[in-house]
Amino acid sequence: LSSKLPHVGTTIFTIMSKLATDHGAINLSQGFPGFDCDPHLLDLVTKYMKAGFNQYAPMSGVPVLRERLAEKTKLCYGVEYDFEEEITIVSGATEALYAAVTAVVKNGDEVILLEPAYDSYAPAVLLSGGIPIYVPLRLPDFSVDWDLVKSSITERTKLIMVNTPHNPSGHVWNQNDLNTLAEIVQDQDVYVISDEVYEHIVFDGRKHLSLMTHPILRERTFVCGSFGKTFHVTGWKIGYCLAPKELTKEFRKIHQFLTFSTATPLQYALAEYLENSSRYLELPLFYQDKRDLFLEGLRQTSFKFSPAEGSFFQMVSFGHLTDESDRNLAVRLTKEIGVASIPVSVFYQGKTDHKLLRFCFAKTDRDLEMALEKLAKLS
Amino acid sequence: LSSKLPHVGTTIFTIMSKLATDHGAINLSQGFPGFDCDPHLLDLVTKYMKAGFNQYAPMSGVPVLRERLAEKTKLCYGVEYDFEEEITIVSGATEALYAAVTAVVKNGDEVILLEPAYDSYAPAVLLSGGIPIYVPLRLPDFSVDWDLVKSSITERTKLIMVNTPHNPSGHVWNQNDLNTLAEIVQDQDVYVISDEVYEHIVFDGRKHLSLMTHPILRERTFVCGSFGKTFHVTGWKIGYCLAPKELTKEFRKIHQFLTFSTATPLQYALAEYLENSSRYLELPLFYQDKRDLFLEGLRQTSFKFSPAEGSFFQMVSFGHLTDESDRNLAVRLTKEIGVASIPVSVFYQGKTDHKLLRFCFAKTDRDLEMALEKLAKLS
Ligand SMILES: CSCCC(=O)C(=O)O
Ligand SMILES: CSCCC(=O)C(=O)O
Repeated sequence: LSSKLPHVGTTIFTIMSKLATDHGAINLSQGFPGFDCDPHLLDLVTKYMKAGFNQYAPMSGVPVLRERLAEKTKLCYGVEYDFEEEITIVSGATEALYAAVTAVVKNGDEVILLEPAYDSYAPAVLLSGGIPIYVPLRLPDFSVDWDLVKSSITERTKLIMVNTPHNPSGHVWNQNDLNTLAEIVQDQDVYVISDEVYEHIVFDGRKHLSLMTHPILRERTFVCGSFGKTFHVTGWKIGYCLAPKELTKEFRKIHQFLTFSTATPLQYALAEYLENSSRYLELPLFYQDKRDLFLEGLRQTSFKFSPAEGSFFQMVSFGHLTDESDRNLAVRLTKEIGVASIPVSVFYQGKTDHKLLRFCFAKTDRDLEMALEKLAKLS
Repeated sequence: LSSKLPHVGTTIFTIMSKLATDHGAINLSQGFPGFDCDPHLLDLVTKYMKAGFNQYAPMSGVPVLRERLAEKTKLCYGVEYDFEEEITIVSGATEALYAAVTAVVKNGDEVILLEPAYDSYAPAVLLSGGIPIYVPLRLPDFSVDWDLVKSSITERTKLIMVNTPHNPSGHVWNQNDLNTLAEIVQDQDVYVISDEVYEHIVFDGRKHLSLMTHPILRERTFVCGSFGKTFHVTGWKIGYCLAPKELTKEFRKIHQFLTFSTATPLQYALAEYLENSSRYLELPLFYQDKRDLFLEGLRQTSFKFSPAEGSFFQMVSFGHLTDESDRNLAVRLTKEIGVASIPVSVFYQGKTDHKLLRFCFAKTDRDLEMALEKLAKLS
């Protein structure tokens, strides 16, 4: 069987998590919380399972969850989405991204990806016969070079995929980013997929500027989010896509044949859990404490860094310390020092090595402290 | 946005289930149990959630579930699969089918579909640029016309999709079907996707002949199954794909970017639940009682039918009663008599109307009895 994705191997997340386990290292590689969710959320799952909510959910998601999500969206961003025709619940943000790409991209269409980019974007584009056009983000702050984006657009450009707060850099977009993107999509007639899974994890009083808040972008964008990231249950695989009616119609046609629907009792539990808005409004401060703890410790190490503005990742630079590749260092740190991280080169199509590592600080304070102690030994 | 699936509308399952709700009809349309699963299975989910299994499962599924599935497969079919490299847990059999199609089919490849066919097969093929070649099953028993299959194969044929026990007809394959398919795939170098979600629902002492039991087929087939169908939890969306190492490798490359992984606590619960084999070995008799109850009542109606050999569907023929289309009759029965069914024409690409309806008898005895009483009024 000849491969349709010949360059795809095992994801770095699997590789590094396994290496961490094998060497008893503290796992700051794969992006998932190292602590539990609110036990009340689990009780809600039990309640709805016992009440018999174990058969197919509606294809687009259980209505009450879509209603609560519409309310959250209104509350957080002041933007209205019709839960009937503009909101779809899917099996994780990865499915949302895949379904949105598949709804839009046809053979030969060009899709602009900003590098470093999450590792599922390009394969999704390729599987629809699209051509990824890689535009590097600006170093060292990973802001968008809009002139470069503009000059990369051709008549065949159909879609731009963006991500704020940004994985792996933690960079967060500002109003100028939204305005410039809006101008571009309006002039060029392209669609946008916005990966906003870290929407509730922004620091130092920043506001997450969802693309939906710009009226022009709202009409052309698939906004993808994740309950797993927000409520510390990444393993539940429940995400969502907000998009205008016409786009949602095509999105659902794809979703219907990918997974059809998503775990029913988990959907009902999340719907009831969402009634209390403090559960996501408290998240920035919760994670800011973790980031600050991590930054404090990092200052005792030889790494260079600037504080993450959002997401639960902190990037560090090590080029002044060693000549080895980021991949090499990530493996060595796991084996020798006992701390696993992600080498940032994996997020570049050409595996460009900027001598950067990504640490996930969504871990218990104790794990973070132990990891920092180990990292301080590195000189 | 121009549609990639212009002919796809809302699925008939959504339409008929909604119509049933709107008219207070007994819903024998969409294929899901109208009763609850074993409460012990729910307790296991609670146990694993509380024990903290709420973050990402491994991409290929939690190892213990794959091991238990390998044991079940050995026990039921005498066939060994390596749980490390030949078994993948996915978010429902629909995802398994989609990922397998996407792993195999390239632009311009022909794919043989046996009609009537489940409604996700053709869209999956189309989204990979494949060309569905529709081969009708033989009436009235829905057996495969192998000469027609053979004569439909060309140099561009890459894949055959099959389904036993068959939805919507309830027809079950025999050894001759397996042997003939094996000859074909060996001569023609094509792959097979086998939808076996009703593997544990076969009647009258029949044995389900999984395609994996034929050594030639085992090496070329993606066997797709569903825990949801087997354990009465269709809403959990957990399925699996068994395929030889080389095929699994490509299957996982796709799965990794579709959904990445599947709800962790549900996977652990199913793994422990599978330890007791009586839970699936008892299923044929459990459903046979329901089928027999349904058949007994059907004999009091004016419909014609031959007993389903497997699946939880019973097809009936009504051409001797009325000239109206199957779709018309399905809607009318829902509105006027209060029983919802599925018009079989929706499973034909050309909406061929053979004057057949499909009833799902995976319902409580009380619901079945009430439905039958209503159907008896039809003359
Ligand atoms: C789906 S595993 C990867 C999790 C993640 O988002 C990350 O580590 O970047
Ligand atoms: C995914 S909804 C359809 C359920 C089913 O398998 C059927 O009714 O045929």
